[in-house]
Amino acid sequence: MAVDTSLLAVISLLSAMQQVYFIKCLRRCRTKPNTTSPASSGNEEFDSTFEAKLQSIVGGYPAFLVCFWIAGWFVSQGVAAVLGLVYMCGYHWRFCMHTAKERSSDFYLSDKALQILAVIGAVGVFTALLDEYLDFNIMKKIYKLF
Amino acid sequence: MAVDTSLLAVISLLSAMQQVYFIKCLRRCRTKPNTTSPASSGNEEFDSTFEAKLQSIVGGYPAFLVCFWIAGWFVSQGVAAVLGLVYMCGYHWRFCMHTAKERSSDFYLSDKALQILAVIGAVGVFTALLDEYLDFNIMKKIYKLF
Amino acid sequence: MAVDTSLLAVISLLSAMQQVYFIKCLRRCRTKPNTTSPASSGNEEFDSTFEAKLQSIVGGYPAFLVCFWIAGWFVSQGVAAVLGLVYMCGYHWRFCMHTAKERSSDFYLSDKALQILAVIGAVGVFTALLDEYLDFNIMKKIYKLF
Repeated sequence: MAVDTSLLAVISLLSAMQQVYFIKCLRRCRTKPNTTSPASSGNEEFDSTFEAKLQSIVGGYPAFLVCFWIAGWFVSQGVAAVLGLVYMCGYHWRFCMHTAKERSSDFYLSDKALQILAVIGAVGVFTALLDEYLDFNIMKKIYKLF
Repeated sequence: MAVDTSLLAVISLLSAMQQVYFIKCLRRCRTKPNTTSPASSGNEEFDSTFEAKLQSIVGGYPAFLVCFWIAGWFVSQGVAAVLGLVYMCGYHWRFCMHTAKERSSDFYLSDKALQILAVIGAVGVFTALLDEYLDFNIMKKIYKLF
Repeated sequence: MAVDTSLLAVISLLSAMQQVYFIKCLRRCRTKPNTTSPASSGNEEFDSTFEAKLQSIVGGYPAFLVCFWIAGWFVSQGVAAVLGLVYMCGYHWRFCMHTAKERSSDFYLSDKALQILAVIGAVGVFTALLDEYLDFNIMKKIYKLF
């Protein structure tokens, strides 16, 4: 178990600010439906699709935080921080795109980063459970091999 | 205060995956309004009710995480893990039901599990506060009685 | 780094309960659009604005939790607890207002509290990073001055 959490905290703070920014954009979408973004150009169906996607980002943030902290806590702070950055940048990059066609594509990079974080976290928790309840420490055995 | 958190981490990871699954369902509901689920059979009013409920689950996830971790941290890891499982299974069971009538009923089991988690967490935090600021350790007194 | 987290846990539990209350109000807004609140008096445009705001509170809750815990963990438990209370009361006060004009104004107090929490958290994490990677402990240097 890692004890240093400052890197995790930095990424968490940055992503929290990103979330606040996304939520402000969503609120603007809702309250002024005709002035969403300069590039939307009156395509209403696309706008509602993009709003739904933006909302799914905001809704998925707690799930990301859980995977991120568990991967960082049980396995490695550095790996989780890098993947967290990829996740954030993936969303931001897609979000800032101004062409409707590119916007309507999926958030592929971020989804992959979240999946890898979840897998790493699951492996870390599994080894911790093995160590705790069956007294079988995989990490020590691997370290002994080298 | 319990130090082992691996069980809490396992349940958190599982519930995060459940959330991601729910969010994907919600996104599909939004972007393709006519193809929500095989069992909805064109009842649009019911669909919007169900969508609102699904969204309230996603919105309530951080509140669940807070109650879950505080109950697990300040009181007992095992009790919190069991209640967390009940909460998850309650939602999943309701979600997978295919009859409209059953779906429109409330998420009774999960709501109850969340309430119990909140009460346990509140009791745990209260005893911790008493111990810290008034130097009055209830647990030790109870242990001495037996 | 502070180790006592009971005050943070108390505020988190309270805010989680507040969130559950907000989400119930949102769910009622959605499922019964005509009976939202006694004071809305049929002004539908205002209602949808208020619903969007309420939803942005629920969506912004994880970001608040991150800033709150990081500020409390890396800097000071007391300061974070006070700001967390201000954040909660700010929302609740606005939420309970019954005049449409007052409701439609922004959540100024809570937004400010969140910003201060984010700044405090950022400063705390920055000093922790300096201490960890450059071995430069600002707090010790400041303590030595006095």
